[in-house]
Amino acid sequence: MTRVLNYGMVGGGPDGFIGNAHRQAINIDGKAKIVAGCFSRTEEKNEAMANQLGISSNRCYKDAFEMAEAESKREDKIDYVVIVTPNHSHYEICKAFLEAGINISCDKPLTVTSQQSKQLDALAKEKNILFMVTYTYGGHITAKHIKNIIKQGEIGEIRTVMAEYPQGWLANENDDGGKQGSWRCDPSQSGRTNCLGDIGTHIENTVANMTGLKIKRVLAKMDTVVPGRKLDDNNTVLVEYENGGSGVYWCSQIAIGHDNGLRVRIYGSKGTVQWFQETCEKLTLIKEDGTITEVHRGHGVIGESVAKYQRLPSGHTEGWLEAMANLYLSFMECINAKKDNTFTEDMIDYPTPEQGIEGLLFVEACLESNEKGNVWVEINN
Amino acid sequence: MTRVLNYGMVGGGPDGFIGNAHRQAINIDGKAKIVAGCFSRTEEKNEAMANQLGISSNRCYKDAFEMAEAESKREDKIDYVVIVTPNHSHYEICKAFLEAGINISCDKPLTVTSQQSKQLDALAKEKNILFMVTYTYGGHITAKHIKNIIKQGEIGEIRTVMAEYPQGWLANENDDGGKQGSWRCDPSQSGRTNCLGDIGTHIENTVANMTGLKIKRVLAKMDTVVPGRKLDDNNTVLVEYENGGSGVYWCSQIAIGHDNGLRVRIYGSKGTVQWFQETCEKLTLIKEDGTITEVHRGHGVIGESVAKYQRLPSGHTEGWLEAMANLYLSFMECINAKKDNTFTEDMIDYPTPEQGIEGLLFVEACLESNEKGNVWVEINN
Amino acid sequence: MTRVLNYGMVGGGPDGFIGNAHRQAINIDGKAKIVAGCFSRTEEKNEAMANQLGISSNRCYKDAFEMAEAESKREDKIDYVVIVTPNHSHYEICKAFLEAGINISCDKPLTVTSQQSKQLDALAKEKNILFMVTYTYGGHITAKHIKNIIKQGEIGEIRTVMAEYPQGWLANENDDGGKQGSWRCDPSQSGRTNCLGDIGTHIENTVANMTGLKIKRVLAKMDTVVPGRKLDDNNTVLVEYENGGSGVYWCSQIAIGHDNGLRVRIYGSKGTVQWFQETCEKLTLIKEDGTITEVHRGHGVIGESVAKYQRLPSGHTEGWLEAMANLYLSFMECINAKKDNTFTEDMIDYPTPEQGIEGLLFVEACLESNEKGNVWVEINN
Amino acid sequence: MTRVLNYGMVGGGPDGFIGNAHRQAINIDGKAKIVAGCFSRTEEKNEAMANQLGISSNRCYKDAFEMAEAESKREDKIDYVVIVTPNHSHYEICKAFLEAGINISCDKPLTVTSQQSKQLDALAKEKNILFMVTYTYGGHITAKHIKNIIKQGEIGEIRTVMAEYPQGWLANENDDGGKQGSWRCDPSQSGRTNCLGDIGTHIENTVANMTGLKIKRVLAKMDTVVPGRKLDDNNTVLVEYENGGSGVYWCSQIAIGHDNGLRVRIYGSKGTVQWFQETCEKLTLIKEDGTITEVHRGHGVIGESVAKYQRLPSGHTEGWLEAMANLYLSFMECINAKKDNTFTEDMIDYPTPEQGIEGLLFVEACLESNEKGNVWVEINN
Repeated sequence: MTRVLNYGMVGGGPDGFIGNAHRQAINIDGKAKIVAGCFSRTEEKNEAMANQLGISSNRCYKDAFEMAEAESKREDKIDYVVIVTPNHSHYEICKAFLEAGINISCDKPLTVTSQQSKQLDALAKEKNILFMVTYTYGGHITAKHIKNIIKQGEIGEIRTVMAEYPQGWLANENDDGGKQGSWRCDPSQSGRTNCLGDIGTHIENTVANMTGLKIKRVLAKMDTVVPGRKLDDNNTVLVEYENGGSGVYWCSQIAIGHDNGLRVRIYGSKGTVQWFQETCEKLTLIKEDGTITEVHRGHGVIGESVAKYQRLPSGHTEGWLEAMANLYLSFMECINAKKDNTFTEDMIDYPTPEQGIEGLLFVEACLESNEKGNVWVEINN
Repeated sequence: MTRVLNYGMVGGGPDGFIGNAHRQAINIDGKAKIVAGCFSRTEEKNEAMANQLGISSNRCYKDAFEMAEAESKREDKIDYVVIVTPNHSHYEICKAFLEAGINISCDKPLTVTSQQSKQLDALAKEKNILFMVTYTYGGHITAKHIKNIIKQGEIGEIRTVMAEYPQGWLANENDDGGKQGSWRCDPSQSGRTNCLGDIGTHIENTVANMTGLKIKRVLAKMDTVVPGRKLDDNNTVLVEYENGGSGVYWCSQIAIGHDNGLRVRIYGSKGTVQWFQETCEKLTLIKEDGTITEVHRGHGVIGESVAKYQRLPSGHTEGWLEAMANLYLSFMECINAKKDNTFTEDMIDYPTPEQGIEGLLFVEACLESNEKGNVWVEINN
Repeated sequence: MTRVLNYGMVGGGPDGFIGNAHRQAINIDGKAKIVAGCFSRTEEKNEAMANQLGISSNRCYKDAFEMAEAESKREDKIDYVVIVTPNHSHYEICKAFLEAGINISCDKPLTVTSQQSKQLDALAKEKNILFMVTYTYGGHITAKHIKNIIKQGEIGEIRTVMAEYPQGWLANENDDGGKQGSWRCDPSQSGRTNCLGDIGTHIENTVANMTGLKIKRVLAKMDTVVPGRKLDDNNTVLVEYENGGSGVYWCSQIAIGHDNGLRVRIYGSKGTVQWFQETCEKLTLIKEDGTITEVHRGHGVIGESVAKYQRLPSGHTEGWLEAMANLYLSFMECINAKKDNTFTEDMIDYPTPEQGIEGLLFVEACLESNEKGNVWVEINN
Repeated sequence: MTRVLNYGMVGGGPDGFIGNAHRQAINIDGKAKIVAGCFSRTEEKNEAMANQLGISSNRCYKDAFEMAEAESKREDKIDYVVIVTPNHSHYEICKAFLEAGINISCDKPLTVTSQQSKQLDALAKEKNILFMVTYTYGGHITAKHIKNIIKQGEIGEIRTVMAEYPQGWLANENDDGGKQGSWRCDPSQSGRTNCLGDIGTHIENTVANMTGLKIKRVLAKMDTVVPGRKLDDNNTVLVEYENGGSGVYWCSQIAIGHDNGLRVRIYGSKGTVQWFQETCEKLTLIKEDGTITEVHRGHGVIGESVAKYQRLPSGHTEGWLEAMANLYLSFMECINAKKDNTFTEDMIDYPTPEQGIEGLLFVEACLESNEKGNVWVEINN
């Protein structure tokens, strides 16, 4: 049965964009409404946002912990919480909601250390709670299509992956002063990494998601290019996969001219797939004989598992919000199935804490590699 | 004051895509909820859709006329109605809601004849009702940016416009059998034109919206290419504007390889602007000296009037739903302002019946030109 | 047998680019050397050019007529002459060389009237002389590939053709003053048309060459956009082919931002082919099911008739000079075959006066159509 | 004074493409003719090629050493020799012609070891002989334009360079059997590297040429991907420049879908430049404010030093042969200047043995890095 679910949010006040982006993505399909939240540590901002969203004052909470506890006791408690606070606070907040028995959608990176993520994952499993980590880009229909293509062996064994995520928004010294740049470049709020944690993890996750490859070891070079900055802003990681293939991941925030340039090129023994987030309505598929085919969203035999996410006919552009909405579609389908006692694990078509853990193991291995002078470091999954 | 508005819908049952697309677009910003509707003339389908949308059974109506009458009498009547039925029914339905004093958002083309549109426009003005015609593409931020660029004289006087809207979905004989193709290619449901009315009007509106140019006369060649088809599927229109400039509009549904290829190139005395709907996150601006600049949504000095529609940072793709949502943002802002007695005409940043009239005058002139053997026909606005 | 041929040139002095371009194209393959010429009506310029090209002074002629006569009497007379003078002089010069029994390569448009071209064609046939008209763009390997694809029926029956040739170099009033603009915009040197004759004929020829379609009738709108100009600078031509298909040809010299934008899109009942001169190393082939394939020069089964023109491996860019050189390769192969008495008509893989005639019939019909107020004018081939 | 020079060739028989490519490039401008050569070690092939090129039999030599000696004794000896044999033979052949006092144009890589290249460079300087190493890609006008842009500081201090050269022609096991693949993948003919030496050196040279940056150290991962192959076919090199900037160079012959994908992206503190060999008629220039400009060959203020290489107007595509021809234009201009005693070092606008040495130092450092397990290796220029 499809019912309209109730959800709450932690974070997502008036200053950032990500909270509103989650709300808009959830809104699209009209399958959930926000009924509770704690949007800001500034009381005024918190109340203003609650008011704007039509949330009754008794469900506008002072902090996440109060919220978790209070909601857990309500009969009409929220069906899930969306956590979109800065990274370093994820762990404690997630823990509180897990202990309160409430399903979670948490922004990536899941936590600051892999250890924390493993604990959350264990706790979620123990308590049988649904837990999504919102790596957006796997939600694109074209990304799902690529996953299927590769699974079906269309490009053969994967030999090498060239993936990158260049941005240019922190190219100048004074960029650190902006709201976003400010906390991202501050070790006390971001932890040991800025760029690698923020967008390098998107590369890692997107490639893992599309290819199914496990990383065996990494060799990372983490640079702080802009004078005066304290954390990395340009990184290159050499990767070796368990299947013997190799990869190069480049992420940067000082690459002038790029807005949000996540691009993945996957070279196999029988063909190649290329995907670029900024033109996410298409992918390029090249076969062994060199034939280069442009595949549009909605073209080709995609199969039921992908087609169900299609909202608009080909050529009517879908974008980032739809990708995020697709994650929530699956997440909420699973929540509904649980309520109806029809849930099975194979229904999960969204990123889970296991992918959050992989992301943090990747970051930790890169940090170790870089500190030791760019040497190979194994990842023990 | 911003309040959550209530709206109803006529049409938009389970078989088409356009009704759901409107609902999704309206959903995004969470500023309205659907509370009434008449979704299908098949009772079962109508009720199933109402049920799915959480509409109470007493506001699920048998037909549009019952709905207009019943809603007009409610204290909590809908703030606006969305009309997404086939073209030939628009006139009567719009009339009923106008007479019921309810604001209207109607899909394009507004009616089957310009005469009908003029009547509706007059009635709406007489009754002081807000009336939107949902030409989607003017809602794109890049389209609004182009409008501003041209208004500011950046490309000088407009000399020639090359605009096209090729699609390939009706390239084969048996394409008429599909749900969409079926009514569009049937004169009894579509009127005297298929392709020109459906997508040619989008060209006309997009160019008029961006450039502000008025068409003086047209010379149209309307072809029915696929054997057995009864209405046009490939059209070319030569256009002369009142400023002395010229244009060529091409629309087609038999152009294999195109999904939804609305593309506009505007050549002025000092520069050129190019825009392509399928890559609507950017535009190309060329200055007199030949410098070709790619402008991304969010780049450049856009001005407040455009910036307020920006939901995501550059590079996080927005698409068709956001364009449609932008129309509704302005429409609902005006409705709210009316309720607050703060409304002024210059707040209208959405397409109105006047644009619907222009669209039909364009179509009628083209039909006349074609029937007379491709001669020039004046448009008397 | 392959021998190094001797050729002469009329026109191609130090001021224009086209003469040198022909010489460079001929040079590439090392199969001919220039031994005679009349490069300029200014004696100094003529001699300087002859000197620069290593031509002995007794074969540097005062005018084309002296040259034709003198060369015809030499035992070692030139194997062919290249004529690259302004359009209005082509007829007399060609006639002189035909009467002198010398093979001709003449720049397009062949003459000023179709009548003249027909006379030249008849004379060449009567005297059994090889005669090439250098429509460059058919020389591209990708253009030849498209011709084969269409001939083999890969895109079915052709339904509509969208072809254009925008340039921006005459967008401003003072552009007429330049060397090139000067004579092109002067009716006394260019005849009754500037833009249509110069580049519109390239569209007509490129489409005819690729598709094999014959034009039945045209409806032309010829505009003079820039104030003070005397000849057309922006033209649109509606075309109907003998097979019932339609086309739109647009050529312009006031389209700021375009260098040399010849682009052809051919839509058939089973597929589509797209080709853009400025990226002439590839073409796009779309099949009925919407699959979009990018075909690079050198990829795919091209067949012997095309492969022989391939100079460099795929990805090592070939360009305009190679396209022109390919015309000369076939022309010179035919000349050699004639010397060896092995020539047959089917060896001709270059444009001939028949194509020159078609070009002029097209221009004349367009002029008539435009003068009569944009009406349909039949072309009697 | 400009005179037509005489040149000879070693290598360039009927089986490969590179010899003919050099001859075609030299031909374009008509400033030199081939008069001597040793094209193959197979007598028949050698004589056939000489005959085809119109070379008299007494200047068709059995081997390069006989040719060097014999030519050196002729009064009308060749002005320069073009050496296009497999890599391992370059050293001895170059040495012979240097000792014979004949100017050299040698294909890259110059020799098998940097030691050999240094010896040749010293010998050339000692004997005052002009010596060109034909790294083609610096010959493109757009590449020269980029060099100027960067020298003028338009993109500020260079921070990071992403450069790649993917090809797909050796993606399959049986590709080693082809003529080219055969010797390139055979250590006895190619030395210690296949892919890195062949195309990795083009990356190194193109970046060095455009940026002027010197490499301080490298960390290389050299993979042999295709089973059974003996030499590298996919390589990634991390680079640190002396200015503190970093780079990533990727070259591959197993990247299905790429023909000849040399692509360079240079990120500076004030802007970015991007260049792609397969679309070499344009470059992308991005300024600090994110403005993305597409610059076509022939657009913008290029300056005399670049403009002189322009053969065709913008939009009339130039390609690989023109780039190579541009190297020869400068080389031959220097030879002529020497004959006229007007030569000065700053006239050299072509790659010299110093760049050949840099290429080999780069390769040797990469090999050492890879053998030691992907560690940093300094380059001592």
